[in-house]
Amino acid sequence: MASYLITGTSRGIGLAMADMLATKPASEISVIFAAARTETDELKQLVVKADGRVKLIKIDVTDESSAKAAAGEVGKLLNGNGLDVLVNNVGIINFTPDGIENMTDLESSFTTNVTSTHLVTSAFLPLLKKGSLKKVVNISTTLGSIKMSPTYSLFPVPAYKISKAALNMLTVQYALSFKDQGFTFLAISPGWVRTNLGGKTADLSVEQSSQAVLDIIFRATTAENGKFFNVRVPGWEKAEGLNQYDGAEVPW
Amino acid sequence: MASYLITGTSRGIGLAMADMLATKPASEISVIFAAARTETDELKQLVVKADGRVKLIKIDVTDESSAKAAAGEVGKLLNGNGLDVLVNNVGIINFTPDGIENMTDLESSFTTNVTSTHLVTSAFLPLLKKGSLKKVVNISTTLGSIKMSPTYSLFPVPAYKISKAALNMLTVQYALSFKDQGFTFLAISPGWVRTNLGGKTADLSVEQSSQAVLDIIFRATTAENGKFFNVRVPGWEKAEGLNQYDGAEVPW
Repeated sequence: MASYLITGTSRGIGLAMADMLATKPASEISVIFAAARTETDELKQLVVKADGRVKLIKIDVTDESSAKAAAGEVGKLLNGNGLDVLVNNVGIINFTPDGIENMTDLESSFTTNVTSTHLVTSAFLPLLKKGSLKKVVNISTTLGSIKMSPTYSLFPVPAYKISKAALNMLTVQYALSFKDQGFTFLAISPGWVRTNLGGKTADLSVEQSSQAVLDIIFRATTAENGKFFNVRVPGWEKAEGLNQYDGAEVPW
Repeated sequence: MASYLITGTSRGIGLAMADMLATKPASEISVIFAAARTETDELKQLVVKADGRVKLIKIDVTDESSAKAAAGEVGKLLNGNGLDVLVNNVGIINFTPDGIENMTDLESSFTTNVTSTHLVTSAFLPLLKKGSLKKVVNISTTLGSIKMSPTYSLFPVPAYKISKAALNMLTVQYALSFKDQGFTFLAISPGWVRTNLGGKTADLSVEQSSQAVLDIIFRATTAENGKFFNVRVPGWEKAEGLNQYDGAEVPW
């Protein structure tokens, strides 16, 4: 009977995770709050298809008052119950093909990929404290691993990498702050996925990645609080280097 | 005959490093550009005392046009020569005593501690490419180590920690980008220092920390490009936990 809120559900893995959760029996998943700034046709279709299980929540995750208003709306819909799982999935990536010294999107990437996560998490914290699972999942990336940076040096997305390293630290800081209250904060790398963000030549389908992220969320316990996981995808566990999706912890 | 530019020289270790460099013979250090937004009395006194070796450069490191104007001014003063060493030393820290969920300084900390480093580095890059040493040092902190976070969980400075993790990733991204051009980018943790920023109960004197940072800078070669070092301070090498200053690499 878990309740979920996922941000960035207008498309991509956010939409797919909401869709997959909606196919679970009501005895497992009570309600999915699909938070988005833009109500795409796909998201509207999911709401209709899910027959009341998926609630559309309008949100601008970079705006504190919008995040708080969304939390207020969700609180009313939960009718005194808590929120069990929050998935901070919003993210942007920009290419900087002409060198890091010409990077102009450092602050905008930070706002969308890091500040948003802080604003949404803090806004929903009172509801999460009342929830029974107390799981907060921040969608990160192995490209945000400082240690793995040489592996990804040919991907010209420095602002994205910097923002995701910062997101990982944010995740750990929240994890340490709420460890004693039974919370589980996780950073999860969903892999390189064939979305608008990942492009058509990426490794994984939206369904493979979304299922793999959900698998980690379902299994996670407080023992994993503050950890950073790669997804595990059947057939990709033993691939070399960039394309290995083995479910292992990712080094910082 | 190396030329240095240090930001944040109005006080603290920035001022002390400029002072120490000015005591070296001109055969070792040709000129020190002391960059600062505020011309404190201490900085003015250093300029007078150094008798032409220390040049005061007015800069707002968070303003791209100010950083570029400063680079133009330094270029003229160097008269066709390059800049050998850049030390990005500006930084702020704020306390968030009432919990990370109430943190309001995430973006301002990022601007001052990360964006500034990018703006200054990119502005001075043409001069650094003409320099003979090509060293860029970003003053970081072990509090920015994601892996060491449990050690520092009682220090309520989440925005500072997050910004410094991001700064470490910025350092590595620059290091990888300019590795083939003979650059050495370093992140250095100066220790917990008795400055305005560190407070009166900190471990190290300004002189101990500044000397230890300069020791790393002097010794660094391209083999250290992209690494993150703790300072080594005599008498503190074998202290336990928080207060160990052993000169070792810091985990990300």
